Amino acid sequence: MPQPACHEPQHLCMPEDARKRAARRLNIARGHLESIIRMLDDPDAYCVDVLRQIKAVQGALSGAGEVVLRGHLQAHVATAAQRGDSEEIIEELMEALKYT
Amino acid sequence: MPQPACHEPQHLCMPEDARKRAARRLNIARGHLESIIRMLDDPDAYCVDVLRQIKAVQGALSGAGEVVLRGHLQAHVATAAQRGDSEEIIEELMEALKYT
Amino acid sequence: MPQPACHEPQHLCMPEDARKRAARRLNIARGHLESIIRMLDDPDAYCVDVLRQIKAVQGALSGAGEVVLRGHLQAHVATAAQRGDSEEIIEELMEALKYT
Amino acid sequence: MPQPACHEPQHLCMPEDARKRAARRLNIARGHLESIIRMLDDPDAYCVDVLRQIKAVQGALSGAGEVVLRGHLQAHVATAAQRGDSEEIIEELMEALKYT
Repeated sequence: MPQPACHEPQHLCMPEDARKRAARRLNIARGHLESIIRMLDDPDAYCVDVLRQIKAVQGALSGAGEVVLRGHLQAHVATAAQRGDSEEIIEELMEALKYT
Repeated sequence: MPQPACHEPQHLCMPEDARKRAARRLNIARGHLESIIRMLDDPDAYCVDVLRQIKAVQGALSGAGEVVLRGHLQAHVATAAQRGDSEEIIEELMEALKYT
Repeated sequence: MPQPACHEPQHLCMPEDARKRAARRLNIARGHLESIIRMLDDPDAYCVDVLRQIKAVQGALSGAGEVVLRGHLQAHVATAAQRGDSEEIIEELMEALKYT
Repeated sequence: MPQPACHEPQHLCMPEDARKRAARRLNIARGHLESIIRMLDDPDAYCVDVLRQIKAVQGALSGAGEVVLRGHLQAHVATAAQRGDSEEIIEELMEALKYT
C-alpha cells in the first residue's frame, strides 16, 4: 500500500487541522460569493453594497489564509533549522506572501 | 407598469455594463475558489500552494471590485455635484473603501 | 499679479484644508519613522517590535492618503460631470488607487 | 563587561544585516516622505500626485518590513522548534502580521 506523499522524505504536507479549518472557511466564503453573484442579477443592485460584500469575502479569504499560514509556520517553518532547509522554505514563503 | 427602482428619484443603480462584467469576474473567482476547496480534500496539499491560490482569488476579487468602483465613480460620484449629494455619496464610499 | 495656477482653467489643485491636514498627518508619520530608524541603531532591537512600528507608520500614511482621497473626490471627482472630464479623472484615480 | 542583551538567554535580537538593511531602506522612505511634506506647501499640489507619492512611500515601508520579516523568519522562527518556543513565537508573529 503506498504511503501518502506527505510521509515520504522531503514532502511537507498541510497539518490536517489547518486543512480542515481552511476548507470550512473557504466554503463559507464561497457561499457569500455566490450570494453576491445572485445580487448582481438584480438591476437594482447598488454599487456600494456590492463593494462592501466583495470586501467581506476578501476578509473571509484572508482569514482562511491566516489559518494556512499559521499551520505552515508551526509545521514547516519552525522546524526548518532541524531539517536544514531554512533558506529554501523562507524564500518560498516570502515569495508567496509578496502578493498580498 | 412599475418603473425599475433605479429610475425612481434618489435611487442609484449599478450601470448594467459594470454589473455584467463584475458578475463575470466573480464567477471566475468562484470557480477558482471551488478548486482550492477540492485541493484541500487532498491530504498531500501543500500550505504554500494553498496560500498562493488564495491570493490569486483575492486578486480576482480585487479586479471585480475595481470594475464596480469604476462604474460607481462614473455613474454616481462624478455626477454628485449635479445631484447635490456629494457629501453623502463620498462619505459612503470612503467608508466602503476603508476595509481594504 | 499672477493668479495661483489652481485658479487657471483646467488646473485642479488640492483643497487647502485637505492639504494642511495631510501635511500634519505626514509630519506625525515622519516623526514615527525617525523613531524606528533610531530604534534600529540598537543591537537589541527586536524584529517583531520593528515590524509593528513599520505597520503603525503605514497606518498613518493610509490615514493621510484618505484625507487626500476624500478631498479629491469632493473637489474634483464629484464635479467632473459638470466640467465634462469624468472619463480622464476617473481613469487617473483608478490608476493611482491600483497600487494599494 | 555586560553582554549585549541579545546574547542573554531568552532574548532574540535582530540579525545585524537585516537591521542595517532595514535602516537604510527606512532612511530612503524618510527622504521621500519629507519631499511629500514639502510638496504639500505648494498650493498648486495636485491630489493624485500626492496620493501616488504616498503609495510609493508605503511601498518602500513594505520593502523594509520584508527585510525585517525575512530576518525574523531566518533567525528566530526557523529555529523555534530547537528552542522549544514555536507556539509563542508564531502567535506573536501572526498578531504582528494581522495589521497589514
